[in-house]
Amino acid sequence: MNLLRLRPTKCSQLSLVTLKRSLYTTNERLQEFRIEKDTLGELKVPASKLYGAQTMRSVLNFPIGTAFERMPKQVIVAMGILKKACALVNKEYGLDAKIADTIATACDDVISGKLGSKTPVHPNDHVNKGQSSNDTFPTAMHICVAKELNEYTIPGMIKLRDALDSKAKEYANIIKIGRTHLMDAVPLTLGQEFSGYAQQMTFGIDRVKAALPRLYMLALGGTAVGTGLNTRKGFAEKTAAKIAELTGLPFVTAPNKFEALAAKDCMVEVSGALNVVACSIMKIANDLRFLASGPRCGLGEIILPANEPGSSIMPGKVNPTQCESLTMIAAQIMGNHVAITVGGSNGHFELNVFKPVMVANALQSARLLGDGCKTFSEKCVIGIQANKERITKLMKESLMLVTALNPHIGYDKAALIAKTAHAEGSTLKEIALKLKIMTAEQFDDWVRPENMLGPK
Amino acid sequence: MNLLRLRPTKCSQLSLVTLKRSLYTTNERLQEFRIEKDTLGELKVPASKLYGAQTMRSVLNFPIGTAFERMPKQVIVAMGILKKACALVNKEYGLDAKIADTIATACDDVISGKLGSKTPVHPNDHVNKGQSSNDTFPTAMHICVAKELNEYTIPGMIKLRDALDSKAKEYANIIKIGRTHLMDAVPLTLGQEFSGYAQQMTFGIDRVKAALPRLYMLALGGTAVGTGLNTRKGFAEKTAAKIAELTGLPFVTAPNKFEALAAKDCMVEVSGALNVVACSIMKIANDLRFLASGPRCGLGEIILPANEPGSSIMPGKVNPTQCESLTMIAAQIMGNHVAITVGGSNGHFELNVFKPVMVANALQSARLLGDGCKTFSEKCVIGIQANKERITKLMKESLMLVTALNPHIGYDKAALIAKTAHAEGSTLKEIALKLKIMTAEQFDDWVRPENMLGPK
Amino acid sequence: MNLLRLRPTKCSQLSLVTLKRSLYTTNERLQEFRIEKDTLGELKVPASKLYGAQTMRSVLNFPIGTAFERMPKQVIVAMGILKKACALVNKEYGLDAKIADTIATACDDVISGKLGSKTPVHPNDHVNKGQSSNDTFPTAMHICVAKELNEYTIPGMIKLRDALDSKAKEYANIIKIGRTHLMDAVPLTLGQEFSGYAQQMTFGIDRVKAALPRLYMLALGGTAVGTGLNTRKGFAEKTAAKIAELTGLPFVTAPNKFEALAAKDCMVEVSGALNVVACSIMKIANDLRFLASGPRCGLGEIILPANEPGSSIMPGKVNPTQCESLTMIAAQIMGNHVAITVGGSNGHFELNVFKPVMVANALQSARLLGDGCKTFSEKCVIGIQANKERITKLMKESLMLVTALNPHIGYDKAALIAKTAHAEGSTLKEIALKLKIMTAEQFDDWVRPENMLGPK
Amino acid sequence: MNLLRLRPTKCSQLSLVTLKRSLYTTNERLQEFRIEKDTLGELKVPASKLYGAQTMRSVLNFPIGTAFERMPKQVIVAMGILKKACALVNKEYGLDAKIADTIATACDDVISGKLGSKTPVHPNDHVNKGQSSNDTFPTAMHICVAKELNEYTIPGMIKLRDALDSKAKEYANIIKIGRTHLMDAVPLTLGQEFSGYAQQMTFGIDRVKAALPRLYMLALGGTAVGTGLNTRKGFAEKTAAKIAELTGLPFVTAPNKFEALAAKDCMVEVSGALNVVACSIMKIANDLRFLASGPRCGLGEIILPANEPGSSIMPGKVNPTQCESLTMIAAQIMGNHVAITVGGSNGHFELNVFKPVMVANALQSARLLGDGCKTFSEKCVIGIQANKERITKLMKESLMLVTALNPHIGYDKAALIAKTAHAEGSTLKEIALKLKIMTAEQFDDWVRPENMLGPK
Repeated sequence: MNLLRLRPTKCSQLSLVTLKRSLYTTNERLQEFRIEKDTLGELKVPASKLYGAQTMRSVLNFPIGTAFERMPKQVIVAMGILKKACALVNKEYGLDAKIADTIATACDDVISGKLGSKTPVHPNDHVNKGQSSNDTFPTAMHICVAKELNEYTIPGMIKLRDALDSKAKEYANIIKIGRTHLMDAVPLTLGQEFSGYAQQMTFGIDRVKAALPRLYMLALGGTAVGTGLNTRKGFAEKTAAKIAELTGLPFVTAPNKFEALAAKDCMVEVSGALNVVACSIMKIANDLRFLASGPRCGLGEIILPANEPGSSIMPGKVNPTQCESLTMIAAQIMGNHVAITVGGSNGHFELNVFKPVMVANALQSARLLGDGCKTFSEKCVIGIQANKERITKLMKESLMLVTALNPHIGYDKAALIAKTAHAEGSTLKEIALKLKIMTAEQFDDWVRPENMLGPK
Repeated sequence: MNLLRLRPTKCSQLSLVTLKRSLYTTNERLQEFRIEKDTLGELKVPASKLYGAQTMRSVLNFPIGTAFERMPKQVIVAMGILKKACALVNKEYGLDAKIADTIATACDDVISGKLGSKTPVHPNDHVNKGQSSNDTFPTAMHICVAKELNEYTIPGMIKLRDALDSKAKEYANIIKIGRTHLMDAVPLTLGQEFSGYAQQMTFGIDRVKAALPRLYMLALGGTAVGTGLNTRKGFAEKTAAKIAELTGLPFVTAPNKFEALAAKDCMVEVSGALNVVACSIMKIANDLRFLASGPRCGLGEIILPANEPGSSIMPGKVNPTQCESLTMIAAQIMGNHVAITVGGSNGHFELNVFKPVMVANALQSARLLGDGCKTFSEKCVIGIQANKERITKLMKESLMLVTALNPHIGYDKAALIAKTAHAEGSTLKEIALKLKIMTAEQFDDWVRPENMLGPK
Repeated sequence: MNLLRLRPTKCSQLSLVTLKRSLYTTNERLQEFRIEKDTLGELKVPASKLYGAQTMRSVLNFPIGTAFERMPKQVIVAMGILKKACALVNKEYGLDAKIADTIATACDDVISGKLGSKTPVHPNDHVNKGQSSNDTFPTAMHICVAKELNEYTIPGMIKLRDALDSKAKEYANIIKIGRTHLMDAVPLTLGQEFSGYAQQMTFGIDRVKAALPRLYMLALGGTAVGTGLNTRKGFAEKTAAKIAELTGLPFVTAPNKFEALAAKDCMVEVSGALNVVACSIMKIANDLRFLASGPRCGLGEIILPANEPGSSIMPGKVNPTQCESLTMIAAQIMGNHVAITVGGSNGHFELNVFKPVMVANALQSARLLGDGCKTFSEKCVIGIQANKERITKLMKESLMLVTALNPHIGYDKAALIAKTAHAEGSTLKEIALKLKIMTAEQFDDWVRPENMLGPK
Repeated sequence: MNLLRLRPTKCSQLSLVTLKRSLYTTNERLQEFRIEKDTLGELKVPASKLYGAQTMRSVLNFPIGTAFERMPKQVIVAMGILKKACALVNKEYGLDAKIADTIATACDDVISGKLGSKTPVHPNDHVNKGQSSNDTFPTAMHICVAKELNEYTIPGMIKLRDALDSKAKEYANIIKIGRTHLMDAVPLTLGQEFSGYAQQMTFGIDRVKAALPRLYMLALGGTAVGTGLNTRKGFAEKTAAKIAELTGLPFVTAPNKFEALAAKDCMVEVSGALNVVACSIMKIANDLRFLASGPRCGLGEIILPANEPGSSIMPGKVNPTQCESLTMIAAQIMGNHVAITVGGSNGHFELNVFKPVMVANALQSARLLGDGCKTFSEKCVIGIQANKERITKLMKESLMLVTALNPHIGYDKAALIAKTAHAEGSTLKEIALKLKIMTAEQFDDWVRPENMLGPK
């Protein structure tokens, strides 16, 4: 496995040692070298690096981008899990127990991020036994994305959903003006408004979960082209079970290994689910920053927590920075989704070679969404205050409440009141009294927003 | 409802009659007019048109695009279903039975595409009773997209899956060279290759179905802002049940009407599922046209049916037109998905106003995918012939079979044979015999591709 | 040329007659047939159709989608222009003058949309002389998109830019509150705000024009693979000159025909320019609808023209339907851009076969943008009224004007005034007087928004 | 300026010192703290960090993503250039010369990446004089993206274009089969094929350059809302000139500062140009890997350099890793383009707040494209070898050469030869002789691919 996310996955000499060496070395100076060799010949490798010829070639052949382009750490960890599972299963099939255990121990180092030492284990004969980068890389993709979704994305979304839901309950009795087409409409409660946001997140969680079953299906056991050449019967099932055991996630072996290697539709599917949630959070964050706009010249119905000073001189200027961050995350996820879609559509024959760019984008989307939802809950949603005074003032000034008069004075008189109020810039009540159509008591009795909040 | 897909949905005077009038009139000449009026005043409407002031204003205010931009017919039919369901439920709630039945009959005309006559029914008091364009339009979206998916998309995908699966079985014994990174790899059967395609379609069907539960949840009953103002208790549930009865699809009322009006995440989700399948068909169609490339200078492993003459003089030049059509459909669906995503992310407060562009794109994607899969099955997949002679020739020439010699003569000798064959442009067998490493019988006995097709 | 936009372009028997026949026939009943034949054999063609075997096969082989999927009319017209140019140039190279003129006359019918009669002209020998669908189709793409941009898109954009610019001048003296992060900020004029919109459109026009030079380069003369086999020297240059003459646009022959056939990057470029403008109009239309939100509970700084009644009972409820239409257009253009990008990236060897889907999307984007801008100007921008009273009220209430006091009373006292005003819900002036920091005259003298509108 | 790319740009206390501190500190342990404060109160900052309260709040408020999400270094460097230009211009307007020079010196440290010491300079009074994050951040965006395009992207593209062009010349006389619809077509030279690729890159360079004029227009001088409040007349022009001097790039002040702050269309435009080139490189890299496919069972017309061993046992198996990397870059750029488009379309009023995510994606696209093109040239294109033997063999076997016989023996006999050859799997020549239609000499004389390469 090459280590940059825009470098191809293929590496026939993939080894655990390479993995361990490549990430955790700190001495970057290249003054001293040793000689490594492979079938293309000899080449110099910095003495401080533990990696071999294969990785060195990759470093030389792909001087592309910045550290951003490095293979995500999560993929390395997933590969450690996978290799450990294989070693343990291969022990059942006859791999020397000592070697198998050595691999497993070394894998634990990879998984936990510690640097191990060189070992007597042969990369191909032992570590890669019954495996190919063509089946291990997609397997590692599934493992690390499934872990990321379960450890970050879904918990973050649940936290946001719960925070919104809690606000929905807290605001159950705050009646406010509705807005459709951005124009004043009939009333609803602020709690009802937030309940819509909470529902979006609930559906979003369902959507992400709906993609998991296919993500839990592993390519391992397909080896080079999907046939499983050089594996033993049962290897695919056993390693999937072992990986399930090691991760606590219900991984199974893929029902068709040709699909599992040649396509990566599943990653497009996961990204598609995240893309829907990106739309949801864009909507929610947009609404909240508009509702909080002001303090004087905007809607001002809610107040966001002041995490940073917006202006030293002007109080109340709290920039909606959490909303801005979340909407940028949404934009990034939408873009990543297209990158993943393009990659996913371009496989050929027995292999899709866009896997590194796909997994890097999927992991970024998953993490950003999870972290973003969590932070947004903690730093924004739970601290939101309803500006009740402002909410009530706007609602009372609204002309849409006129619809409540219809049953009492008829459509024509009601319309007359509304039109006059609009023309004169007055309230409905002022005009109703001025035109002597009703008494103040009647108005208050008839125009009750609390009776406009549901079916009868 | 305005009738162009890039015109807003809002129309407070929406009526069944308008719907019926707008689509089915054939006389387009505008010489004669009658006067219609609304609250903005009078305006002239062509005598040949049955529609009213509202639609006339829309025609005048949105002279945008070509006939392409018209509201999809499926939305109109869905609106007919919806209005019928509402009339029948409103009858239970006290709407005059004769009027309700008249509406239902008129709706049948709309649904079946027949032109009805003017009726004594009042658009607002009777037809739109307990409804708003804010809840009817999203309901109609769900109805028509659900119908399209069930009537075209899924059946088309099943047909393609079955055709591919049938080929997978037919080709179960044709052993061919595998290709990874586009380079020669170890063998698999042509049937195994097709089984991967079939699996992609099977997963695709699952993906589309996984989006249906939320599509079956209807906004109807939310009226203007989601509160259900002006509806009766039970109206939402009863109309959903009636629509389920009329369509045979398991529609239910949405659990949260605020989400159902303000967001349209569900449409992004459906489109996301279609986007995954677009990746699948792009991959499958690309593989098939490459495998069929030639007739002399390409891979030539399969022969596509000759639906059109590719060249009058050159036999065997069959352009892969079905593959080309299907991959264009994939590109369109990917693009539509972004349009839907952008629309879905831009709702504000109690209403997302991008619904017309979203439903138009979703319907196009659904139909194109369904029709495309069906046609591709019938005009391409079922007529594919394996070019067995070519397949066998390529496989036998491949050097990758050398791996089968390892256990018998050791790695070094095997590599020597392969390198010599590559350098001299010979086959493995020729070189193995020439170097006197084995007999012809031994070669044939050891190099058996049929033993390289699965785990041991 | 096949007639559906998701059907491949390839048609070796392409003829003018086919073109004319295919679009303009009105009798759709299929009861009577005649027999046509090609190299694949005989087939029945409806007697009412003038097209031949090739088109009939296409109709039968691609029963995909609805009328939406038909090849855009603009492509047909462009093909008419191209064929006329070729006939006239071929006359110079020896094509029988009578035949050439007959073709040219028939082409005029195609261009103008009239139905011609059957002619004695042979499709291949005469009409297609020196041409291939591989070079004519991309040429027609360039012609029709260039025409659309020049006839609709750019004029529509200029109209919108001029309307915005006119408003910028009209509103030069209306000072209003600025908003950054949606929060109250220092003032600017409404005219300055509109000048930013006008500048976006001016840049947009530059962007679209910047893509034209490469659009004016024609593939014609490349024939099947770009070599120009079967053409005469000078044919490419002469036909380009003739097309330039016929269209009044500066077409030239492409400098490299291999690129012109095998890639369609130019269409991606044009779409990319339209995509930028889509972002611009999304921003402008969003701003305008937010500025017009209300009438009571929004920002309410401007009033959009009332094109349709928003509500029969509630005056002042004018839904921003033109903004909604324009933002839907933006979403569609962004989606089309991805479809075009995917198509543009998937060419192979000497031909990109995604041209039909690319041109259909590009034409739709170009037309929607042009029509949308024009309509938006006429039905929205020119009718916008500034709500001066509301604008002034909001600005005066703003706390951000406090920054003007700094030089006179120092930062600390200024901040004290602002904080007190915010806490008490008062205006700066009220608090300044209440705290006896200054007189009313001083306040009015020092806090002059008109002095905060530019550099000193 | 906050330091993560998905954190908002807003920071009223932005200082050079903050910039310098934030990036270059190496001691990450947080054991010791000092107290910093701002208008929201006190907070603890790790003693090892030089940054202040503002940045500390950002670190605490946005625990999102991994190191990937950090603000790109290029933005920091651009900010250093900008701040230096402002200090030098402010000196002309009266800023204390010693302070101005101190700032300039400190900026040099920022630009070069060295860590400076604390200075007596006040962040707001001196460094930020006449500036706002609302105009400096977009200015820094333009500077760093313009530098990246000029220093990496365009040089990389030129290198690739030149490499392709050089190959086009080298292969000018190698005649090969053409392929359209992936099917055998009439011949062209391998040089002609490569000339199409070179032309794509030439146009690509033109496209990127076409976006530069608007990128060279700087927002600086607009301050908070575009009016230039708190700047001096001439400040905008002078600082732009100074930045031009410091960078050697023709920066000018933007003609309209309202557009420059409120919109970021220019970034969408640049990304759109990169998106076109992404399509180009996807096509080129795809073609090259297909042409190199094999070694035995693919097209095999060219041989890519063997940068890594593809297989230890199988010679000639060279995976097209450079092509794979380049096509992944293309996918990433297409995705980034959508992220930028979504961000660019979502500005509101006087400010677009999606700038951090836009610039991060634009920089990544620019760098990846530049590095990718350079590496692809050096590690792939210049080392490509034509497999002349294979090319000639395929071309001679092709049936499309039969078209050359038409003028000599007529269409019917030519077609008979082709059909017989196809049916019997023979060459045209074998059949022509077998049917005694011509002599071998005649065949060789008439069928001359070298006469099929251009117009006559």
